Amino acid sequence: MSDPLVEVVRTGVRLIELGQPFFTGMPCSPNHPGFRMTLARRHGDMVRPDGGSASNEIIVTGGHVGTHIDALSHVSHDGLLHGGIDAAEAQRGGKFTAHGAEHLPGFLRRGILLDIARLHDTDILPGGYEVTVDDLERAAKLAEVAPEPGDVVLIRTGWARLFSQTDAYLGGESGVPGVGVEGARWLAARGITATGADTTAYECIAPGAGHSVLPVHRVLLVESGIYILEHLSLEQIASQRVSGFVFVLAPLRIVGGTGSPVRPLAAISR
Amino acid sequence: MSDPLVEVVRTGVRLIELGQPFFTGMPCSPNHPGFRMTLARRHGDMVRPDGGSASNEIIVTGGHVGTHIDALSHVSHDGLLHGGIDAAEAQRGGKFTAHGAEHLPGFLRRGILLDIARLHDTDILPGGYEVTVDDLERAAKLAEVAPEPGDVVLIRTGWARLFSQTDAYLGGESGVPGVGVEGARWLAARGITATGADTTAYECIAPGAGHSVLPVHRVLLVESGIYILEHLSLEQIASQRVSGFVFVLAPLRIVGGTGSPVRPLAAISR
Amino acid sequence: MSDPLVEVVRTGVRLIELGQPFFTGMPCSPNHPGFRMTLARRHGDMVRPDGGSASNEIIVTGGHVGTHIDALSHVSHDGLLHGGIDAAEAQRGGKFTAHGAEHLPGFLRRGILLDIARLHDTDILPGGYEVTVDDLERAAKLAEVAPEPGDVVLIRTGWARLFSQTDAYLGGESGVPGVGVEGARWLAARGITATGADTTAYECIAPGAGHSVLPVHRVLLVESGIYILEHLSLEQIASQRVSGFVFVLAPLRIVGGTGSPVRPLAAISR
Amino acid sequence: MSDPLVEVVRTGVRLIELGQPFFTGMPCSPNHPGFRMTLARRHGDMVRPDGGSASNEIIVTGGHVGTHIDALSHVSHDGLLHGGIDAAEAQRGGKFTAHGAEHLPGFLRRGILLDIARLHDTDILPGGYEVTVDDLERAAKLAEVAPEPGDVVLIRTGWARLFSQTDAYLGGESGVPGVGVEGARWLAARGITATGADTTAYECIAPGAGHSVLPVHRVLLVESGIYILEHLSLEQIASQRVSGFVFVLAPLRIVGGTGSPVRPLAAISR
Repeated sequence: MSDPLVEVVRTGVRLIELGQPFFTGMPCSPNHPGFRMTLARRHGDMVRPDGGSASNEIIVTGGHVGTHIDALSHVSHDGLLHGGIDAAEAQRGGKFTAHGAEHLPGFLRRGILLDIARLHDTDILPGGYEVTVDDLERAAKLAEVAPEPGDVVLIRTGWARLFSQTDAYLGGESGVPGVGVEGARWLAARGITATGADTTAYECIAPGAGHSVLPVHRVLLVESGIYILEHLSLEQIASQRVSGFVFVLAPLRIVGGTGSPVRPLAAISR
Repeated sequence: MSDPLVEVVRTGVRLIELGQPFFTGMPCSPNHPGFRMTLARRHGDMVRPDGGSASNEIIVTGGHVGTHIDALSHVSHDGLLHGGIDAAEAQRGGKFTAHGAEHLPGFLRRGILLDIARLHDTDILPGGYEVTVDDLERAAKLAEVAPEPGDVVLIRTGWARLFSQTDAYLGGESGVPGVGVEGARWLAARGITATGADTTAYECIAPGAGHSVLPVHRVLLVESGIYILEHLSLEQIASQRVSGFVFVLAPLRIVGGTGSPVRPLAAISR
Repeated sequence: MSDPLVEVVRTGVRLIELGQPFFTGMPCSPNHPGFRMTLARRHGDMVRPDGGSASNEIIVTGGHVGTHIDALSHVSHDGLLHGGIDAAEAQRGGKFTAHGAEHLPGFLRRGILLDIARLHDTDILPGGYEVTVDDLERAAKLAEVAPEPGDVVLIRTGWARLFSQTDAYLGGESGVPGVGVEGARWLAARGITATGADTTAYECIAPGAGHSVLPVHRVLLVESGIYILEHLSLEQIASQRVSGFVFVLAPLRIVGGTGSPVRPLAAISR
Repeated sequence: MSDPLVEVVRTGVRLIELGQPFFTGMPCSPNHPGFRMTLARRHGDMVRPDGGSASNEIIVTGGHVGTHIDALSHVSHDGLLHGGIDAAEAQRGGKFTAHGAEHLPGFLRRGILLDIARLHDTDILPGGYEVTVDDLERAAKLAEVAPEPGDVVLIRTGWARLFSQTDAYLGGESGVPGVGVEGARWLAARGITATGADTTAYECIAPGAGHSVLPVHRVLLVESGIYILEHLSLEQIASQRVSGFVFVLAPLRIVGGTGSPVRPLAAISR
């Protein structure tokens, strides 16, 4: 076996979790159906003649609940999806015939952590804080790695620390820190494939503003075709001071959908 | 950036799909709730003041529907899960407090394709065909790679070619080809981490037998702690004659669940 | 207490079931999500300090699954709902702002059973049989009751006897007996409030035709504002030779929905 | 047609709504999956050759969400359901083989409104207020009707006025008014069939206590076999000063379930 990728993997890989677990009652934007896992069959409900028994479940969830990735069908502007595709036409029939979640790629490419909270010497950025171009440039310098075409750029605000406090995490009153329009344009100009953050909506939400407008979604998804990841947990990787890594992601190919729950991983050689 | 894994990934990676897409109406064992994706909000339902609009969905599915991985909580024998854990105790409260799907690891490790259909010079093995130890040994020789501890072993029967014909694919009358008890013990003895196949239940199902007993699940999940993947699609990788690769998998960490829908990928250097 | 209705009810009432029970796996048109009841919490999952415990469930179902009533939002013709309301406009936002299921009335009004199967001296009418105006007139004579404005008219084909055989009941190959366009016009001319049958789609379905066109739905729902009930079970009431009765129905007021599962009852004095 | 019930109904009936509508986002105890109606197919998604089109939905809900009735399988005490039935045994297999919701009767019997809020000259009783035997007796006197065997007794607290304010309505901090154990025993002694209230849990909940213990459920469901209705809306009937009526209810016959969403109606002669 002489494949270089196989060889390097066989020498040892360390995986770092970049997402949240999925559980009934976890924080969820009110726009979406919450996640619920219910055991349908339990051990003992039906015992096979040889003593075997099985348990299984029914899962109800939104496609944008918990750690997830947005497909390009998720957001339109003036009626158009990325590439000028008519949204009304694409969604007719109840599943997207263009830009559906089944077109989300698998990811095994370089990932970069831009730790904005660390840059500002804080655990958690304040609600409503806008991550600027200057922040991004300085964080990249701190990480000793510059975003290049094809990379995946993860933005840490520290907000994942609030995940167990639903109201604080959703930030209705406080607002939520995140990248602003200028920062999004800076990222798009670097030709990245995807970007994500450790918050509900990725972008900067002003206190009390809710999701009334989401201009960064427009810049990234509609104008640039860059995928967005939300509800990341970047605490573990930040504490390990890993800033360059292999970003591993395998979104479910949900035909005609607008997003997929995922479990993102960072991989580095052991 | 001097991480060897990052370096080799940056030189170029090719990903091969190993799973089926997820769509409403896809084949599903009658034991499980079928998959359904329904758009809840469509573009135009609510237009933001700046012309933006979003679409999202509600997903209902079983945890063992479509391409998925079994957690160790899925199967018990004589009331016990892997490691002698009491199943009734573990499931009390409606989510598993041991061996739940949140403990499913992420995978970035060597995968091996054992192409049993090709070995027998056929596109699709007949229903009820039992994959023997001899088959496994000869297929490994054909693949020029021997399963070692930690590997993921995928068994191709060719059955994925029937996926669009629900009744034929489920194989109620015909039975389904798959590994038998002896083959499972052979695999377990090699210390592999997981194994999967391109069928509903992984194991050999005799014609008309249904899932009345599932002894291979017992050997793998309960006795050996080896994860099982089902509903793989191995046609693409087989046609490319790739037999050793990096197996990429990121099961959702569903707290207390018994399995997770997944999108398995094979990765090789370009 | 001198209310006449209360007085007559207190002298004794007999209720006859007119619908099917709801259970996981029951027949369902492929257009709709099937019914599934899953216990979410079981007794013993959580025991209160005083020894009390509770069980509850999650239910997933379509609005047109099992015995149900169609709201006027269910069907449009040339883009218009009953009364010329624009369907696209009414459904914007993902729930109907006109003719939604919350406008379905409660029913406590005269019901009439027209037993077409009995009229033809058979237990079950053949698939594809069209119930004619002559059938309706003769069945009304047999029932010794003429439909009048406000009445609910139930059409028995005997098809409920097939409910436990999903394929036969759905009648894909055989077709399904039911009222044709002329019969629907005859019923509409009588000013009835609702009509129902013991089949999937109420109307006559030719063998192999499926639900390619549903002209009777147009006549009743769109043109006449007459509600349709489907999946009734009229075997019990027919065997008791009750042809005039009080029809009891309480559709759920599902805001913006297109139908409701129901449990219709016939009530007569004991 | 000489059936007295049919005759009196034909002279004219007035129906009064006793329940809440069902809508996405309505108040729901955190113990239960909330209600969600999602349009799956919309008009225009599929247009039949004749210009017809249809819309339908998927509904996800708990069985104890919104206005509903508890089946006798809902609550156990020391492991036993009503009549000494073993709860663990009855629920094996994931649906109740005894006391399931399919055994809930249809109701067309006398209903009585006991207006405790009016008795105390208030619109809404305070959170945590316990409805006493004295209250019940005085309210019955005010209503000029005494509960008799077979009757359905509805208790008005005025709490339905809070339905649009989820937190206030659920009463986590304030507690919720309702019948206490003594009141429940008084009702049970009268041999009534069912009783309901305009609150989440029917019974008196002390401020901050939550549903830690539910002794009235034990008295009514387990000891007495009396069905409980929750989330009623009794504002309309109270304002009309109707205290004796025909109570109309048709719970869905959900096989093996623990409750059913319902639309209760009061009927009186016009």
